[in-house]
Amino acid sequence: MQVRLSHIAERAGVSVATVSRVLNEKPGVNAATRRAVLSAVDVLGYERPSRLRAKVAGLVGLIVPELANPIFPKFAEAVSIALARHGYTPVLCSVSAGGIHEDAYVRTLRNHGVAGIIFVSGIHAIPDTDPDRYRELCEAGLPLVLVNGYLSEVDATFISYEDATSVDLAVGHLAQMGHTRIGLALGQDRYTPTIRKRDGFARAMRRHVDESLTDDSLADLRTFTTYTVEGGTTAAHALLDRGVTGIVCGSDLMALGAVRAARQRGMQVPEQVSVVGSDDSLLIEFTDPPLTTVRQPVTAIGNAAAQALLDQIAGAPPAPSELFFRPELIVRGSSARAPQD
Amino acid sequence: MQVRLSHIAERAGVSVATVSRVLNEKPGVNAATRRAVLSAVDVLGYERPSRLRAKVAGLVGLIVPELANPIFPKFAEAVSIALARHGYTPVLCSVSAGGIHEDAYVRTLRNHGVAGIIFVSGIHAIPDTDPDRYRELCEAGLPLVLVNGYLSEVDATFISYEDATSVDLAVGHLAQMGHTRIGLALGQDRYTPTIRKRDGFARAMRRHVDESLTDDSLADLRTFTTYTVEGGTTAAHALLDRGVTGIVCGSDLMALGAVRAARQRGMQVPEQVSVVGSDDSLLIEFTDPPLTTVRQPVTAIGNAAAQALLDQIAGAPPAPSELFFRPELIVRGSSARAPQD
Repeated sequence: MQVRLSHIAERAGVSVATVSRVLNEKPGVNAATRRAVLSAVDVLGYERPSRLRAKVAGLVGLIVPELANPIFPKFAEAVSIALARHGYTPVLCSVSAGGIHEDAYVRTLRNHGVAGIIFVSGIHAIPDTDPDRYRELCEAGLPLVLVNGYLSEVDATFISYEDATSVDLAVGHLAQMGHTRIGLALGQDRYTPTIRKRDGFARAMRRHVDESLTDDSLADLRTFTTYTVEGGTTAAHALLDRGVTGIVCGSDLMALGAVRAARQRGMQVPEQVSVVGSDDSLLIEFTDPPLTTVRQPVTAIGNAAAQALLDQIAGAPPAPSELFFRPELIVRGSSARAPQD
Repeated sequence: MQVRLSHIAERAGVSVATVSRVLNEKPGVNAATRRAVLSAVDVLGYERPSRLRAKVAGLVGLIVPELANPIFPKFAEAVSIALARHGYTPVLCSVSAGGIHEDAYVRTLRNHGVAGIIFVSGIHAIPDTDPDRYRELCEAGLPLVLVNGYLSEVDATFISYEDATSVDLAVGHLAQMGHTRIGLALGQDRYTPTIRKRDGFARAMRRHVDESLTDDSLADLRTFTTYTVEGGTTAAHALLDRGVTGIVCGSDLMALGAVRAARQRGMQVPEQVSVVGSDDSLLIEFTDPPLTTVRQPVTAIGNAAAQALLDQIAGAPPAPSELFFRPELIVRGSSARAPQD
């Protein structure tokens, strides 16, 4: 390795002598400066001296529901990158895999002495779950970050996406284009994000479409299947039977299934039916039609989750309340003005 | 848990008394029988008794280049599922993440006592790399499986995709529809899969299009950029400048980039330009147009890699030669008859 000390010094905003001290592990450099120098080494593409490299070696558990929904690899990627910058490596636990239970993974992770665990859409997303499984970990001093779910009894850091806002953006977008019969296609309603989207839909419909909508008429406009292509197809057929012209979906996969259902009925998207997805995962801009969707800021959430865990590992207490990240509406080709009939 | 002992005994080919002894951790059962019983418990969907569950807890390193190309999450998913069935959990090492080097990950994995490592498209895919980094691991007795690359000097199990066959299928498909000017868009040619696709292209063009094609004219029909959307766009512009009517791409992302390039020039896909992708990763059937592609059997390769590693962990020697998996041509909407000019 041909290290240009001056190059690193300039980037880190320190002297060449300081860079040399850090790379040769001499004393007299504070932790923040040391981090800045090593970060500059990484950013500039140099390989760290082997003695420094060998030390960066902690494991962190990362529990995700599955990798088949492209939103979860995106989470795994974001968390991996953020952890790697600090020398941690994620142990990937994909809960759908072979039916391994989240609790079993947690036992494995503890056996291997992980420094902390990040749960993405885990059991903590079921509001009436037994919180003791998490409380016990907190009491044992294990740093935890729980993404997209909330249990008030657990003293961990909770990071969530604004599910209700995402539905509000989607409904508002369709309402502005003249849609009044708008359907909602979600997965199972035992999960917190699903419940938040469902409740957000009621508020959004009353706000953007008709404030006198009854609970019964709203119930008629929503379906709960699964967050998959097949779930979206089933939901869309049910909603189209009820005369909707716009469908707000709880995932991009469901939205692709809804497009498929419309076409099975000989209907054009977006001319006769508008479809809005959720998440904006990998490749969604290349679909036919390119999906209008509400983007979940997965990289920001993954970064925040990793950072919150690293802070706890360093001794900081968990965040005092749930941290929320805002969605963005991405308008592409699957939504248009309501048909004029 | 309501365990049907007779059900498990039948599946495992042992007596009910033996099943009972294994589940109650009584002595007098050999390791192979014990494994067969526990495997039957898993296969039949029963939950293992908690004492036995807590024990199944090995880590396996899984090194992949990145998660942004959807083929790699698919690998990670397949390997995870196959390992989970046997109680192993993968430590996910995404090499692009923050610039952590493969060698650094290997050190981390060894520090954490992993039972073995699966490398997917790692440094072993560079034919002139120093094989000592792998030889040293083999000599230390660490089971290794290396996917999509080959180093003859290393005594590990190698599992690969038939890259040359994949290009042959794509070229043959286009040639059958009257294309004679066919271009090849690949990533950097320092990787074994790229070299195999390049060489397969020469053979396929001579076989399907014109056996007298010279090396120079073939060189004119291929480009080496990167396996990304942007790489595909750049490559396609260069190839379209040279008058090709069909483009064979080294990844699905490149193919989406090639479609984009054709449209930027006001050309229709597939009416004026045919594009064939490679891999058939997640969501590719939903793209515009739905991509014709050559499917890499990722689940089969992931399963085989996991199984080969488990065999080595159990004491079997590595496979004596590279194991190859065959591609399948999936014809969708991005390829058609050559334009009649």
